[in-house]
Amino acid sequence: MKVLVANLGSTSFKYQLIEMSDETTLARGAVDRIGSPESSCTVEIGDWKDQRTMSVPHHGVAVEACLAQLTDPQHGCIKSADEVDAIGFKAVHGGRFSGVYRIDEEVLAAMEEMRDVAPAHNPPYVAAMRQLASSGGNIPLIAAFETDFHQTTPDAQRYYAIPKQWSDDFHIRRFGFHGNSHRYIAMRTAELIPGASRVISCHLGGSSSLCAIRDGKSIGTTMGMSPQTGLPQNNRVGDFDPFAIPLIMEKTGLSLTEVLNKLANEGGLLGLSGKSGDMRDLEAGAAEGDADCQLALDVYVSEVRRMMGGLLVLLGGADAIVFTGGIGEKGAEIRAKVCEGLEDLGIAIDRVKNGVAEGEMAVHSETSRTQIWRIPTNEELVVARKCVELLGK
Amino acid sequence: MKVLVANLGSTSFKYQLIEMSDETTLARGAVDRIGSPESSCTVEIGDWKDQRTMSVPHHGVAVEACLAQLTDPQHGCIKSADEVDAIGFKAVHGGRFSGVYRIDEEVLAAMEEMRDVAPAHNPPYVAAMRQLASSGGNIPLIAAFETDFHQTTPDAQRYYAIPKQWSDDFHIRRFGFHGNSHRYIAMRTAELIPGASRVISCHLGGSSSLCAIRDGKSIGTTMGMSPQTGLPQNNRVGDFDPFAIPLIMEKTGLSLTEVLNKLANEGGLLGLSGKSGDMRDLEAGAAEGDADCQLALDVYVSEVRRMMGGLLVLLGGADAIVFTGGIGEKGAEIRAKVCEGLEDLGIAIDRVKNGVAEGEMAVHSETSRTQIWRIPTNEELVVARKCVELLGK
Repeated sequence: MKVLVANLGSTSFKYQLIEMSDETTLARGAVDRIGSPESSCTVEIGDWKDQRTMSVPHHGVAVEACLAQLTDPQHGCIKSADEVDAIGFKAVHGGRFSGVYRIDEEVLAAMEEMRDVAPAHNPPYVAAMRQLASSGGNIPLIAAFETDFHQTTPDAQRYYAIPKQWSDDFHIRRFGFHGNSHRYIAMRTAELIPGASRVISCHLGGSSSLCAIRDGKSIGTTMGMSPQTGLPQNNRVGDFDPFAIPLIMEKTGLSLTEVLNKLANEGGLLGLSGKSGDMRDLEAGAAEGDADCQLALDVYVSEVRRMMGGLLVLLGGADAIVFTGGIGEKGAEIRAKVCEGLEDLGIAIDRVKNGVAEGEMAVHSETSRTQIWRIPTNEELVVARKCVELLGK
Repeated sequence: MKVLVANLGSTSFKYQLIEMSDETTLARGAVDRIGSPESSCTVEIGDWKDQRTMSVPHHGVAVEACLAQLTDPQHGCIKSADEVDAIGFKAVHGGRFSGVYRIDEEVLAAMEEMRDVAPAHNPPYVAAMRQLASSGGNIPLIAAFETDFHQTTPDAQRYYAIPKQWSDDFHIRRFGFHGNSHRYIAMRTAELIPGASRVISCHLGGSSSLCAIRDGKSIGTTMGMSPQTGLPQNNRVGDFDPFAIPLIMEKTGLSLTEVLNKLANEGGLLGLSGKSGDMRDLEAGAAEGDADCQLALDVYVSEVRRMMGGLLVLLGGADAIVFTGGIGEKGAEIRAKVCEGLEDLGIAIDRVKNGVAEGEMAVHSETSRTQIWRIPTNEELVVARKCVELLGK
């Protein structure tokens, strides 16, 4: 069984083709600048790297371009598109659809209903999925929503203190996201650290969230109703106070929609620093003495620590803390700062191990009661497995 | 020096008259149903309890009625109003004015600017203060803002991840509240538990927040820009996702103002339970099997734990956790649930001691590395002390 796992942006289509019998990646590639007359189609299949420039007007054509490369007579890894058993999407917010589903009009309508809740994520996904669905291929399209893994969180973690009818009738609750990554960490941690029943998964990257995992299940996470909650994101706001919004509207003359757009696109690390939402730029800026870059770093670390503490109490202590995602994997300094001064709570990082950590590696000190690990995530594999599960039903 | 400490509601004026030489309360009383032709004026001075019914059209007249009782020829505790050196207000949100101030037009204007941020608190305070100021008495009026104690929190705790200019130009940041109570706990803890440099103050009541205190200073708290953030309050929402608001508006047809009003008046424990915002009603309802009352209790405890965890990591462990406020002092079951299952983190409550705790009392078990205390708060005393400090300058 072969699954093409797709990661969609408004003008991009990134993918991996995974052979599920041995869970190997046969190909990985991307179609960029979709909608431009000079779109770029790149692919890596074994040692073969190919780059083609062509007009790709929409995501439907992007899949055709991708399949053309995958079935390349000389270098391709499949003979025909029929060999692809499913296209799986790491879809973000399905509202009442929080699991894994064949994409149909009902699922798309539920995603559309969440357009203002996930303005950076849902509209491009819905548009692309519609194009793919209507471009007539026979490959099943499957959405593995990022909210899926968090369906096991108890109600006490999910309900906001709003009129309960709003929660129940309009599906307003803490959904949580990055579920495919947190699920991967849950599965991989069970293999790497037998007996670690209480795990805090720290998915830190352009988009970040933490998850409390007990016995392999999510029992709490840091994102809420929308992907603009929880930790500050690269350019999205993170937790914020709705009651400040009328004041912002009055002072700036902006409408509610405009204020929310700014919070979703010009907030986060970008908003705090005024320079960049990229951690590397902020670290470079802070090293040169830029106070706003330093503030952005400080707020980020402070918020990761605050939320880690919340999950630590939820779990009653942690057997393992796992860092993953772009920043979680590459940001040794961030990992060190997040764990700083927590010896009294049984958490101690080994600065030397942490500084050189690569691949899957423990980075805690010998005295630490909580194990601390760096584990690269593999969200695509989780999506592919979910597709197999669904089709196998 | 004598200070009259006032606690204002939209139709009420509660007060204590405190003799600052020995910090004793000379009188305590209330004027209720202000604006009605049959307002009620009650006072307790030593053994004397007096209740008068009269027309009190506004808060200016309420102070006159209060002073008439305090100067009662036979039972009064002062001979004339001149003996009152200041009226101190536990004022809520002064925006850029976060300390202790003589009330003037500039302070009132700053409070007015925060009317939508603190809709339940600021408008009645501003109206009452204006009436008092214009009713022509000579007694200095002083506001000791609830945000004062949190001025020592570092920027990393205060900045939201919004465009930084909004934070700086419009004073949008995590102010925190209940500062007079948390300051009292900081002072009293230093006396009761020498060497406890890291304290988590849990002010739990109709309005609740936690505060991380290091060496007597606030370094972080759970409320943010507005008093509708942090923990769920009796009828106010607590932390919520602004990006759910357009969905609520679309589904209900309500305006932004109407949605925020509902969140500020029909949210919190009241919204979750659909029955009551009072903890006693919820405990009674849950005991009778009401699932929504149980949910409200569960969410409340869960949120206290989550936020306590955040402050625990901020402090790098706690020497003491202190419960205060109406629920913190009377809610033995809530205290027990908040501390449940935290032995791995060095926090263990003694169920027997906790069940019978009164007054100032330690309730942790012998094995607990963190001391756990019940300490009744005294916000009025802190306000009075702040008035003395200001007038002494």
